[in-house]
Amino acid sequence: MNIVEALNWRYAAKRMNGRKVPHEKVERILEAARLAPSSYGLQTYSILVIEDPALREKIRVLAYDQPQITESSHLLVFAAWENINETHVDDFIRMTAAARGLKLTELEGYRQAINGTVNGFASSDEQLHWAARQAYISLGTALTAAATEQVDASPMEGFDAAGLDDLLSLREQGLRSVVLLALGYRDTGSDRQAGMTKVRWPRERMFIHL
Amino acid sequence: MNIVEALNWRYAAKRMNGRKVPHEKVERILEAARLAPSSYGLQTYSILVIEDPALREKIRVLAYDQPQITESSHLLVFAAWENINETHVDDFIRMTAAARGLKLTELEGYRQAINGTVNGFASSDEQLHWAARQAYISLGTALTAAATEQVDASPMEGFDAAGLDDLLSLREQGLRSVVLLALGYRDTGSDRQAGMTKVRWPRERMFIHL
Repeated sequence: MNIVEALNWRYAAKRMNGRKVPHEKVERILEAARLAPSSYGLQTYSILVIEDPALREKIRVLAYDQPQITESSHLLVFAAWENINETHVDDFIRMTAAARGLKLTELEGYRQAINGTVNGFASSDEQLHWAARQAYISLGTALTAAATEQVDASPMEGFDAAGLDDLLSLREQGLRSVVLLALGYRDTGSDRQAGMTKVRWPRERMFIHL
Repeated sequence: MNIVEALNWRYAAKRMNGRKVPHEKVERILEAARLAPSSYGLQTYSILVIEDPALREKIRVLAYDQPQITESSHLLVFAAWENINETHVDDFIRMTAAARGLKLTELEGYRQAINGTVNGFASSDEQLHWAARQAYISLGTALTAAATEQVDASPMEGFDAAGLDDLLSLREQGLRSVVLLALGYRDTGSDRQAGMTKVRWPRERMFIHL
């Protein structure tokens, strides 16, 4: 099944059947998320992978009682880095130097360029939006990977982000929750979205050719 | 080649060789971008597909002279909708009703929910950030699709967005440029990024298992 077929197969399942996604499939989906590109390669987010049923019950309460939060196999929480600073950048530069066998001095220009961007936002909110956008690239990559594994993946923005940050102690870790992705298997019997025609803007409306 | 292999193969090529990507490959990448999910399915963005060499020369000037803008085969400009209003939502509800054979009244609750979100942002900037995030899901999907087609795809945030909006008359069309994606083929001879080890946070740093 190629990507276009897989994306036509997928939909945002609202009801899932609780069946576990095999470990090796979850690993490939997470690896795709990890390999997603980002601005400067800085990957300004972490991904929480939540299987604990009791914790997912609490999260469901914070997310308009959406059933797929507890009926999924794994719940991913994409959490953007808050208050990105030179320490983050230095860590990244050290990792890059080690991976590529370079001296830190060879990456000094790159380090300064990243710091220029990181420190150049008009506000900490603007910086957080930038960090969150990088997480959304990874989200798009992960859900495409899930579709090719025939695993359902439901993205969710509808949740109490501040409440979730409290529940998971995210701010203490320098993180802010931005979007959820439930991985599991559709329950076609109970999901009234199952089998519905996919709705997308037609090509002539979405694309402008120049 | 599966997705993980494809994502390991890809990198953000800074130099491309000008070779045209075959039409059917471009079509599949665009179709993947179109099939990407979004909040409510509203797909709050358009994608400009730019082949015109003269226009790409002008865009390159607005984007720190990045060579892949003119050396690529197709330049995609992801442009988020600005000032999303009930007219956008009504269009979407009509399209949904037509695609699924539903009456507009059956979608009234859905229409109101979308309007609640669209009208509920603290500012037009916050709304635009939300619209842009949806475009980034599509970006992640498109670049993953490109990788599986063995087409290089270089995302770029480094450009004068206001200047590009002017050049392409985007604001008159209710659009704001948010991110670029150059599609083409890497020039391994001139690109010093080619063949470099990919750098990503290790799994134990990126993922938090609960």
